[in-house]
Amino acid sequence: MSEKIEVLLFGLGAIGSFYAFILHSCPRVRLTVVARSNYSAVKENGILLKSANHGEHRFHPDRVIHSLSELTSSPSPPFDYVVCTNKAIDVDDVARSLAPAITAEKTTIVIIQNGVGNEEPFRRLYPGNEIVSCVTWVGAHQPTPGTTTHTTSEATQIGLYQPINPAQAESALSTLITILRAPANPHPTPLTPLSPAALQLTRWEKLMWNCAWNTLTTLTAQDCQAWLQSSEDALPLTRRLMREVVAVAHASGVELPETLIDAQIAKMQGLGPVRTSMQTDREMGRRMEVEVIIGVAVKGARRVGVEVPVLETVYALIRAVDSLVGKL
Amino acid sequence: MSEKIEVLLFGLGAIGSFYAFILHSCPRVRLTVVARSNYSAVKENGILLKSANHGEHRFHPDRVIHSLSELTSSPSPPFDYVVCTNKAIDVDDVARSLAPAITAEKTTIVIIQNGVGNEEPFRRLYPGNEIVSCVTWVGAHQPTPGTTTHTTSEATQIGLYQPINPAQAESALSTLITILRAPANPHPTPLTPLSPAALQLTRWEKLMWNCAWNTLTTLTAQDCQAWLQSSEDALPLTRRLMREVVAVAHASGVELPETLIDAQIAKMQGLGPVRTSMQTDREMGRRMEVEVIIGVAVKGARRVGVEVPVLETVYALIRAVDSLVGKL
Repeated sequence: MSEKIEVLLFGLGAIGSFYAFILHSCPRVRLTVVARSNYSAVKENGILLKSANHGEHRFHPDRVIHSLSELTSSPSPPFDYVVCTNKAIDVDDVARSLAPAITAEKTTIVIIQNGVGNEEPFRRLYPGNEIVSCVTWVGAHQPTPGTTTHTTSEATQIGLYQPINPAQAESALSTLITILRAPANPHPTPLTPLSPAALQLTRWEKLMWNCAWNTLTTLTAQDCQAWLQSSEDALPLTRRLMREVVAVAHASGVELPETLIDAQIAKMQGLGPVRTSMQTDREMGRRMEVEVIIGVAVKGARRVGVEVPVLETVYALIRAVDSLVGKL
Repeated sequence: MSEKIEVLLFGLGAIGSFYAFILHSCPRVRLTVVARSNYSAVKENGILLKSANHGEHRFHPDRVIHSLSELTSSPSPPFDYVVCTNKAIDVDDVARSLAPAITAEKTTIVIIQNGVGNEEPFRRLYPGNEIVSCVTWVGAHQPTPGTTTHTTSEATQIGLYQPINPAQAESALSTLITILRAPANPHPTPLTPLSPAALQLTRWEKLMWNCAWNTLTTLTAQDCQAWLQSSEDALPLTRRLMREVVAVAHASGVELPETLIDAQIAKMQGLGPVRTSMQTDREMGRRMEVEVIIGVAVKGARRVGVEVPVLETVYALIRAVDSLVGKL
């Protein structure tokens, strides 16, 4: 590893901008960001983060590129980490497109995304590279290109995905945890290291959360609280949907605890009028994370032969809503 | 029965305006209409019907009233028929509010509405009055108050509901059929008389049609054709929803044929990009016919103990959407 830790961050939406800030807080990191829709704004003005926890900061990543092909025309030192904070859509295509940034057996791939199974396309394409998997509970949105507003909601669970060379993988994870904890940052971001199995369980926990709240708010144009109060059928339906996710997890060998259903509902009831990322995507006419949020549960159910009529219904409806994008 | 046949028509939306035209075509009819939101337009300019089948006509009902209380302050001869073409929302309240128009044992109540069970509140409140039940397949909309556009879609199925005095009921039905066939109209509206049992079966047929198309288009903002083409899951889900309606009908003693599922889907596939009344209601910010279109199927299922997870899901979602009305 060179003196500087070379990090490429792919996907500079709200979540990406938040982690760019965290990574940039570490002086050892040399940060390259791939900005796509917001390239001009970020290239010119850097990233403005307005965070309830971290205060207001405008910062400039070391290098801002528009597309991965710039890495070929103007090479940089090999990356130690490629961090994916892009919206989890077309995951196979994205994994393929990252090839210019990934050095075999050197680059650690870091996935900070919704969903279950997002690691698989990377493992298939880059069988010699270690993968770090993260679940994020950061609440942020990007009202204008290059400007991100962050709430007080902030937590990252982090762990290895099926390590190939365990010693090397542990070392890469440990370095990453050190830089994410960015000692120079007066308010370090909460980070919970987990075992590979515990991290996958956490992915399922967040999948259950997203499966319910994202889809139900998107289909009804209600925030989570208003949805729950919309009729006496809303809460039982939410529970039933979550029970189906638990059944799929169990049949897939993941011991998602049944008690999580009540815990997640109680948590949501305490949060006030929460809106979801999928709902915002629909309203903005953007493609939604259909497959990693709901498709993965439905396809998992079909694979293991579990009946999930509520998930099936919601999945077909969400696919129809998503199919409108670009046609309106 | 006086020389003139006294008819009150309640609800002057698109469907009400269409039937007002048909009734007005019969010289024997003296037609009173209750116009609510469009009272001023109809009082001043009458009703303009632009029909692909009947041509363009502006006509003036004999009397236009704004609310039923006008019947008390300025009495008319007793009504032979009270025809309900109002949207089937708050059906108990509406049945109660019609009391000033209903003369015991004289007035025949005519229901031209979506749903199953719409006759029940009338039978409870007016146990001595005969009820005629109709299923309409008229395609019409009202782009501006008092103006109705009618497509080529036109058919009415008509029959008695649990006759009290069979001879009197048959006579009332037969007179109504005569006046609806309005011999003065060069293009009589297609009318199919049915037995009470067959009419109820037809109500279930339309319930299945509405349960599927109205809810799925409303939740996805797609027309029926675009919904069916939105993903490979859309058609199987539509079938599954319809199968649940068939199961509820069977358990309720109504022999809705299973073959109707394929027939209705084939019919829809032949119709082009059809939009539904519930979808239009949502887009216009109006309350939707939630209970008579989907609630009745779900509640029926709960009563007879049939599992209907797709209907339950769609019902809870539609209730949430409907609960937004008036809050936006």
